[in-house]
Amino acid sequence: METVTTISDIRKAVAKAKSDGKTIGLVPTMGALHAGHLSLIEAAKTKCDFIVVSIFVNPTQFGPTEDLDKYPRDFETDQAMCKKTGADIIFAPTDKEMYPIQNLTWVTVEKITENLCGKSRPQHFRGVTTVCTKLFNIVQPDLAYFGQKDAQQAIVIQRMVADMNMPLEIVVCPIIREPDGLAMSSRNKYLTNDQRTDACLLYKALIECEKMVSNGQRNTNTIRTIMLDVLGRSKNITPQYISFVDCQTLKNIEVIESKALVAIAANLGKTRLIDNIIVDAGI
Amino acid sequence: METVTTISDIRKAVAKAKSDGKTIGLVPTMGALHAGHLSLIEAAKTKCDFIVVSIFVNPTQFGPTEDLDKYPRDFETDQAMCKKTGADIIFAPTDKEMYPIQNLTWVTVEKITENLCGKSRPQHFRGVTTVCTKLFNIVQPDLAYFGQKDAQQAIVIQRMVADMNMPLEIVVCPIIREPDGLAMSSRNKYLTNDQRTDACLLYKALIECEKMVSNGQRNTNTIRTIMLDVLGRSKNITPQYISFVDCQTLKNIEVIESKALVAIAANLGKTRLIDNIIVDAGI
Repeated sequence: METVTTISDIRKAVAKAKSDGKTIGLVPTMGALHAGHLSLIEAAKTKCDFIVVSIFVNPTQFGPTEDLDKYPRDFETDQAMCKKTGADIIFAPTDKEMYPIQNLTWVTVEKITENLCGKSRPQHFRGVTTVCTKLFNIVQPDLAYFGQKDAQQAIVIQRMVADMNMPLEIVVCPIIREPDGLAMSSRNKYLTNDQRTDACLLYKALIECEKMVSNGQRNTNTIRTIMLDVLGRSKNITPQYISFVDCQTLKNIEVIESKALVAIAANLGKTRLIDNIIVDAGI
Repeated sequence: METVTTISDIRKAVAKAKSDGKTIGLVPTMGALHAGHLSLIEAAKTKCDFIVVSIFVNPTQFGPTEDLDKYPRDFETDQAMCKKTGADIIFAPTDKEMYPIQNLTWVTVEKITENLCGKSRPQHFRGVTTVCTKLFNIVQPDLAYFGQKDAQQAIVIQRMVADMNMPLEIVVCPIIREPDGLAMSSRNKYLTNDQRTDACLLYKALIECEKMVSNGQRNTNTIRTIMLDVLGRSKNITPQYISFVDCQTLKNIEVIESKALVAIAANLGKTRLIDNIIVDAGI
């Protein structure tokens, strides 16, 4: 498995693979890989013949007070994991390679970026959609793989691809969880032992929600109260939001009538974690 | 020469041409073709084997008080001109084909869209960059051709392509002029006979500027005053701006030290015309 750091080299490698008739899959990551990322590579292997994993901690999606500098970086471990899982090439550009001059061009998605994480991270999705546009234009994949863990990101990227007629397909893969239910995240590394023990309460709250919906509860305020009780079992957890939203528009839902995305964000100390499930009252 | 109206059909035609090893050229237009557009097709013929002319009056680049509804449309004449000049295919989508659902995604270029036409047409360039992104993603050309007549547009598109790593080359072609110097424009059709006679004063003012610079004048305020005198020969002309700007940053220049873009916008009745030249004090 090769690693390249320049746009020119990744383009050459992809052009070669395309000329051999191969289907190109892209797994965009910020490194610090875990089983969630590896499941995206595994999913790519089922449809693609040449799998590019990009590793780039994109500065434009971090706010000024966020964790850009301390974001976990362990390139050699990432490399070994990609190789073992069956990626064909890693594209690991520098900041200078991706943003050689002041970036003046931004891709923004309106409305669906305003709720959930968009409320507290105002420029985050602009950074994500801009860097994904760049990566799609650089790698020119047939398919690109994203995790359901970042549910709003996946919905925003899918809408961007549709609106801009980008010539690729987005595949969204299920959340991979630790044995106690905690959703895999590179940021789990920040947690102290105590925080790590309590972090599974986010998932427990989502499971509680699922139970209530399957028992016929439709009122999101009632459900939220119970979910807050679950999170309240730990003093380490400061909930940021528990939201019930439409899966396409991401508008808030008062009463669950069919499918709904139930999304949680919470702080454990300085670490911000998110998780979500989709519930379906129509079943 | 074929005409297609759907994204699916133009993609099929381009994919076929690419599989035959052809280089794809795109000439994006809003129709009402004139010799300026045809010069873009001619330029494309020198480097491309398969030339797509898109004809789409893009609603998102018109302001609410602008001329979207009365913008000249003459599809049969456009078709005949494309065929005669040697285009291979016309892509003429409907509004519904290009914007099937509410468009939430926008490509914006900061700073260089704020001066010149950006001042009076605040959302114009956002519409242009967004529709060009869509057209580039739909057609996937190797080269795309734009006219120097819309100098700011050409600079903005080039910057967008560079910033977003779009996999194509932008070619900017010289302004084509009527015998009296008036820059070719679809909007010239709006002019009354009197206005048409006076419209060449925009170019005469630019020529006057060129003379002054070659005679050593470097002060843009002095030059602007003389240029306003030229435009002032007609009561039909209401100047909107005469600007001297850097060719990359589009920032205003007080004293011309090397290359400068000299751009004019003026109203003749309700018709807004633009023109420009590049002067070089360094020669």
